[in-house]
Amino acid sequence: MSDSSHPSIVDFRRDLHQYPEAGWKEFRTTALVADELAERDFTLHLGTDAVAEEERLGVPPEDELLTAIERARREGAPERYLDRMDGVTGLVAEKTYGDGIGPVVGIRVDMDALERTEAQDDDHRPAKAGFVSTHPNEMHACGHDGHTAIGLGVARELDRNGGFDGTLKLFFQPAEEGGRGGLPMSKSGHLDDVDHFVAIHLGLGIETGTVVAAFERPLSNAKLDVTFDGEPSHAGNAPQKGRNALQAAATAIQNLYAIPRHSDGVTRINIGQVRSENPQNIIPEEVEMRVEVRGGDAELNEYMLGRAKRIISASAEMHEVDVETGLYGKTTTFTADTDIAEAVADAASSVEGVNEVVPCDDMGGSEDASYLIRRVQENGGQATYVGIGASNPYGHHTARFDIEEESLPIGVGVVAETIRRV
Amino acid sequence: MSDSSHPSIVDFRRDLHQYPEAGWKEFRTTALVADELAERDFTLHLGTDAVAEEERLGVPPEDELLTAIERARREGAPERYLDRMDGVTGLVAEKTYGDGIGPVVGIRVDMDALERTEAQDDDHRPAKAGFVSTHPNEMHACGHDGHTAIGLGVARELDRNGGFDGTLKLFFQPAEEGGRGGLPMSKSGHLDDVDHFVAIHLGLGIETGTVVAAFERPLSNAKLDVTFDGEPSHAGNAPQKGRNALQAAATAIQNLYAIPRHSDGVTRINIGQVRSENPQNIIPEEVEMRVEVRGGDAELNEYMLGRAKRIISASAEMHEVDVETGLYGKTTTFTADTDIAEAVADAASSVEGVNEVVPCDDMGGSEDASYLIRRVQENGGQATYVGIGASNPYGHHTARFDIEEESLPIGVGVVAETIRRV
Amino acid sequence: MSDSSHPSIVDFRRDLHQYPEAGWKEFRTTALVADELAERDFTLHLGTDAVAEEERLGVPPEDELLTAIERARREGAPERYLDRMDGVTGLVAEKTYGDGIGPVVGIRVDMDALERTEAQDDDHRPAKAGFVSTHPNEMHACGHDGHTAIGLGVARELDRNGGFDGTLKLFFQPAEEGGRGGLPMSKSGHLDDVDHFVAIHLGLGIETGTVVAAFERPLSNAKLDVTFDGEPSHAGNAPQKGRNALQAAATAIQNLYAIPRHSDGVTRINIGQVRSENPQNIIPEEVEMRVEVRGGDAELNEYMLGRAKRIISASAEMHEVDVETGLYGKTTTFTADTDIAEAVADAASSVEGVNEVVPCDDMGGSEDASYLIRRVQENGGQATYVGIGASNPYGHHTARFDIEEESLPIGVGVVAETIRRV
Amino acid sequence: MSDSSHPSIVDFRRDLHQYPEAGWKEFRTTALVADELAERDFTLHLGTDAVAEEERLGVPPEDELLTAIERARREGAPERYLDRMDGVTGLVAEKTYGDGIGPVVGIRVDMDALERTEAQDDDHRPAKAGFVSTHPNEMHACGHDGHTAIGLGVARELDRNGGFDGTLKLFFQPAEEGGRGGLPMSKSGHLDDVDHFVAIHLGLGIETGTVVAAFERPLSNAKLDVTFDGEPSHAGNAPQKGRNALQAAATAIQNLYAIPRHSDGVTRINIGQVRSENPQNIIPEEVEMRVEVRGGDAELNEYMLGRAKRIISASAEMHEVDVETGLYGKTTTFTADTDIAEAVADAASSVEGVNEVVPCDDMGGSEDASYLIRRVQENGGQATYVGIGASNPYGHHTARFDIEEESLPIGVGVVAETIRRV
Repeated sequence: MSDSSHPSIVDFRRDLHQYPEAGWKEFRTTALVADELAERDFTLHLGTDAVAEEERLGVPPEDELLTAIERARREGAPERYLDRMDGVTGLVAEKTYGDGIGPVVGIRVDMDALERTEAQDDDHRPAKAGFVSTHPNEMHACGHDGHTAIGLGVARELDRNGGFDGTLKLFFQPAEEGGRGGLPMSKSGHLDDVDHFVAIHLGLGIETGTVVAAFERPLSNAKLDVTFDGEPSHAGNAPQKGRNALQAAATAIQNLYAIPRHSDGVTRINIGQVRSENPQNIIPEEVEMRVEVRGGDAELNEYMLGRAKRIISASAEMHEVDVETGLYGKTTTFTADTDIAEAVADAASSVEGVNEVVPCDDMGGSEDASYLIRRVQENGGQATYVGIGASNPYGHHTARFDIEEESLPIGVGVVAETIRRV
Repeated sequence: MSDSSHPSIVDFRRDLHQYPEAGWKEFRTTALVADELAERDFTLHLGTDAVAEEERLGVPPEDELLTAIERARREGAPERYLDRMDGVTGLVAEKTYGDGIGPVVGIRVDMDALERTEAQDDDHRPAKAGFVSTHPNEMHACGHDGHTAIGLGVARELDRNGGFDGTLKLFFQPAEEGGRGGLPMSKSGHLDDVDHFVAIHLGLGIETGTVVAAFERPLSNAKLDVTFDGEPSHAGNAPQKGRNALQAAATAIQNLYAIPRHSDGVTRINIGQVRSENPQNIIPEEVEMRVEVRGGDAELNEYMLGRAKRIISASAEMHEVDVETGLYGKTTTFTADTDIAEAVADAASSVEGVNEVVPCDDMGGSEDASYLIRRVQENGGQATYVGIGASNPYGHHTARFDIEEESLPIGVGVVAETIRRV
Repeated sequence: MSDSSHPSIVDFRRDLHQYPEAGWKEFRTTALVADELAERDFTLHLGTDAVAEEERLGVPPEDELLTAIERARREGAPERYLDRMDGVTGLVAEKTYGDGIGPVVGIRVDMDALERTEAQDDDHRPAKAGFVSTHPNEMHACGHDGHTAIGLGVARELDRNGGFDGTLKLFFQPAEEGGRGGLPMSKSGHLDDVDHFVAIHLGLGIETGTVVAAFERPLSNAKLDVTFDGEPSHAGNAPQKGRNALQAAATAIQNLYAIPRHSDGVTRINIGQVRSENPQNIIPEEVEMRVEVRGGDAELNEYMLGRAKRIISASAEMHEVDVETGLYGKTTTFTADTDIAEAVADAASSVEGVNEVVPCDDMGGSEDASYLIRRVQENGGQATYVGIGASNPYGHHTARFDIEEESLPIGVGVVAETIRRV
Repeated sequence: MSDSSHPSIVDFRRDLHQYPEAGWKEFRTTALVADELAERDFTLHLGTDAVAEEERLGVPPEDELLTAIERARREGAPERYLDRMDGVTGLVAEKTYGDGIGPVVGIRVDMDALERTEAQDDDHRPAKAGFVSTHPNEMHACGHDGHTAIGLGVARELDRNGGFDGTLKLFFQPAEEGGRGGLPMSKSGHLDDVDHFVAIHLGLGIETGTVVAAFERPLSNAKLDVTFDGEPSHAGNAPQKGRNALQAAATAIQNLYAIPRHSDGVTRINIGQVRSENPQNIIPEEVEMRVEVRGGDAELNEYMLGRAKRIISASAEMHEVDVETGLYGKTTTFTADTDIAEAVADAASSVEGVNEVVPCDDMGGSEDASYLIRRVQENGGQATYVGIGASNPYGHHTARFDIEEESLPIGVGVVAETIRRV
């Protein structure tokens, strides 16, 4: 197969950027990747074969998923893969190189976009260059379009230049934002025989040309979707007849921020979204709230989660309102393994365009590749999380996020070279 | 002028019902009324001549008003009156009957719709009969379409059957919902020479055929629009850098509901709407909140308002966030005058379809006709607020609200007969 | 028996004032009263025969009671009655006059002092005149010393001047302050055959010479003693190990004051006392809190009580602390009966020193005579609560409270004259 | 001078234990130490010459100090030193050994007891052995009696066995508990020429025989005494007339615990004591509150302090109550200097009874020797804080705290040996 039948990985990234798909809606993205990898003789595990369906977190309502599938169809997703996905996104693609007696190497890239609207003016390069998002309230503002392109680029590079004897497993993970797809993919079974595992991320404050071989110790986190459900009442005529969901929420908010600090390490708590939509004269009967807790390790995160749930439940009880608390997303933490990190560092040093290699650093944020990494480690494999520098003037998750595309071949090079060396 | 050139008041009410206009957007309604009253030789005071412009409360943003004017134009509002309004709705129409040595009588009806979407299924009579609202999120769910029709009906009735010697002033008030239009209309100057004043309301839990001659002692109230404005920050990486608008709001909410009860009478407090729209991992920098306080009289209302403002301001100060607190609406209270109430009761007894007359009752809710009534009383006039029974299966402000149209001629009759008797 | 063997009722009142006994500690007071009434051939029901023991509220710890008994002994309480009381204060004294076919009349006076320290300087008359309290933190600051003296005075007056044919029951109630003794005395059985019942109170803002024949509609109330019991921990080394009783209490306080107002009438809530006694660096493991709720009637009081208990319990649950909530005291409300109130008004008009008789007024505060009154009414009797004017420059419950003693013979006269007339 | 004229340091410690004096009341302790050191030709700096008077924190009321002086007099404090102290405790004692060309060495010991009552039963060794505290609510529960004894022991040891050429300054610090005496002593001027500085502490979880040469990085902290001062009102009759100090305090408590965590390091917050003393039916007009904040370094502590003050002030403003916020105590943090720590470690290894020397460890708690240490370091000196193991079955600050007295000669040995080596 000739590569020329495909767009370059830069063009491929731009195509994804133009048609971004938020978590669990990556139908077009998955299908496009599947289509090329099938041509390249990869064995495909799609949808429920790539993620443990019942472990999925923060899945949008069914009607939104159907709309997303229809959109993917309209926007050129190969029909056959849409059908095979059966409503669940995600792909594990597997191929054996050489005589197949070598190790199993896993590479994880994530595919989902964020729910925010991209800047459309000419000061924003994707807009000026004509590949700005065409989907309102969806945008690749975290570089996952680049990750997916690198994943595909690695397959192309190994096909083209070889140098690896073993089995390559490419994990195209859905729904990383919010920490929703990592857990179910970690339970797919496909990680259990992986000997060496590398996850990657572009940007994260690192300039193009720098590579961090082991970005580790992210904060564990958990996101809760909370709905307090009481009883409305006219606030003038019968205030006592209401069961006030807002008093429950305000009590919860005050006490959530006041969860005791923990002497074992870092903890965090935040409530980002609160919505009560009543007119002024009606006792609020429904309040929605989105909460996030974090911990320096999984135990600290569980401490915060336990306290938060108790506070939320008691606040509802106090004001005699019902409450539903759903887990929207969850991540854990990990420490990278030394051997694989060193292999990455060695590999990176040999890649054109790399001018600095940082052996390891603390990640700061949260990342659900952590579940995949721990799964590999629990089964005796080695894993690391690699930062691929990509200069960008605006921060991740902003409306003007962009990546320097020189980082894409660097990413492909670092990963492919690492695969050859392990 | 022949009445046959105009739709019946039932048809007129249905037309208004189909094209409902929320507070300060009653351009079409005002223009249609003005058009007919001009034909009937009323002197018109429109827009800023009907309401004191700078006293208006809860006015929507300019662009919404422009959109509403354009819509009114499209939907048949007589052009000339749109122009004369100059962006401000409301109408005082004045006409002298007989030799003009009789008293000045004021009649107040309100014109605005509510911001809610009307039920569209065939179980809802307006839908089945083809006059359901065609404006999403606007609906005559409080009967003001009927009020406006009755106001016009009174003019027709006096033109047709006479019996009054004096000056009639018809007050077509905008923006009653939320208590936004009463105060500015009370300061228009047009009430200062009114000797007898009657405001009316359909429904309010009274069956068709019953008339309450003096619905009095509504709760004073005030509505506040509050915006807390802080600083966002990443909740994992730098929680201390945020200035948390949600902590300010939660503190305010807890303390607002806890404003001490008052031994002089009834007080109320509610927060209906709260909105913080951040993702879970960003310290909330902006929270919007809609608050309402009430008091059994104006002093109690001021007590609540003063305490509420202090709490809101100190909550912001506590969390180092800015806060803007705007008055969205305000009402006061009143007691009806005996003579005019008795005149109404007498008049009502003589009207066909009326089978019960209740001398007086407490209103319970809040009403900004209170400002007009007090203005009349302060200038030595007499005033009452009349409840015109109108059976309806669903409550006011619900998506299925409707009125029995037999109440419309009753309303016209009660008001016209009262005018003849004072 | 000659009255001269006894101190005048003014002197008796001064003796009680000098040796005040707080609720459930009225051993000396009870014994002195019992002693004289026994001489006067009253049948005595003492202690557990005067109050239903298991229904007592807010009883101090056993050791405090023992100390109070010892003190009474030292301060001249007749030994034999101390023994008969067996640790429980209170007295119902009964005597039949004439041929005993007349009605049963009940008179209720309360005996307990308040827990506060009396002013000791010469600007305070009891101090200057030498009968100031000798008990630190106990003081007759509500006039119950005068009530007890009036109760005894009534017995003397009827013995001396006759004029009554029937059975007189004198209820010397313990522990009125806090509403602790009324409920158990109402369940003693002694009220069930009472035909006419009068409770009295001195002062209450009424000048000497004025009598209110029916002081009615007190607020129902309930007092809760709450103890939150958590786990201490060093706030620096292990904040997460504490179970913070203070966070529970603060959450409860915020939400208690925010219990929704009730459209059926008056409600009240207050937390007077809060105590957490830890050093700054220890997470508070115990917090004591004293709460009071009130309602315009018994149902409103139950509404407040139910909400308060739910809030307290959920606050404890929220912070994983234990909580004990004990009922410290409780009162209900009542309306006086017309016939007995008129009899009191008639009687008062004939008493020397009375210059104004008010037929009825609202009480405002709370009063546990309400339980006795309702018991009488439930069994077909008539009852009222009488205000005996007694000018005093300082308010009830203050360190400088005093009563004009001219009110004492007036009180005796009004009650005795009423007894003669029913 | 013969040592036999003095009690052994064990007996001296037991004497102090029996007559414990809480912070700023160490009159007897200071005077006894001064008396012996004067005999030993030390130059004495007493009271305001030992601490900067206006910098003192958490000083008890004047009458308590006078009572403490009287008690000291009664319990055998040498009169002349009581006079010289002039109401302020604390002592810097200075002596030059040899030809005085050697370095200036400072040794700091603290003298104050805690405000708690010691266990009095025979299971508690001080009680059984007859030296239990005779002062209710004062107890040496942190080993400062031993520290003072060691300070004196060092003077004896150097007098007896020499080996040091230079100037010895002994800092007998008052009021360490709460962090009240360190700051004013650090500003006395006496530390500015100190070349080598050692502070010591017994116990702290270390077994007898172990010495920690550098106990460092304590948490900075600050303690606030807060009084909210509002207006009382009858909670039934006029709840609106109160200015509720308890609502202010509860709002503050909720928000204090919710001060955002800081990404730069450890922060802590606690409220240990809260007192509102009203009866249930009076709106609380006064609430006292004791707060402590901590930070991993001085900046973090200032962050917490600033946020806490803002919250307290805004809570008062919200409820229209006055507030006074006084600094009760404050500490900072430090890192020990390597050279002096090594000197201590060397010295310790040579002392009989020492079987383990730990070079350095984190302290965890807070300590106001930090101010003295930083003062020395700022002026170019070297300083460390030494842990002298002293097994004790119960924790510091408990009613059963005791120290193994074998630790006393070890303490003397380690310090004296260090002085000889620097």
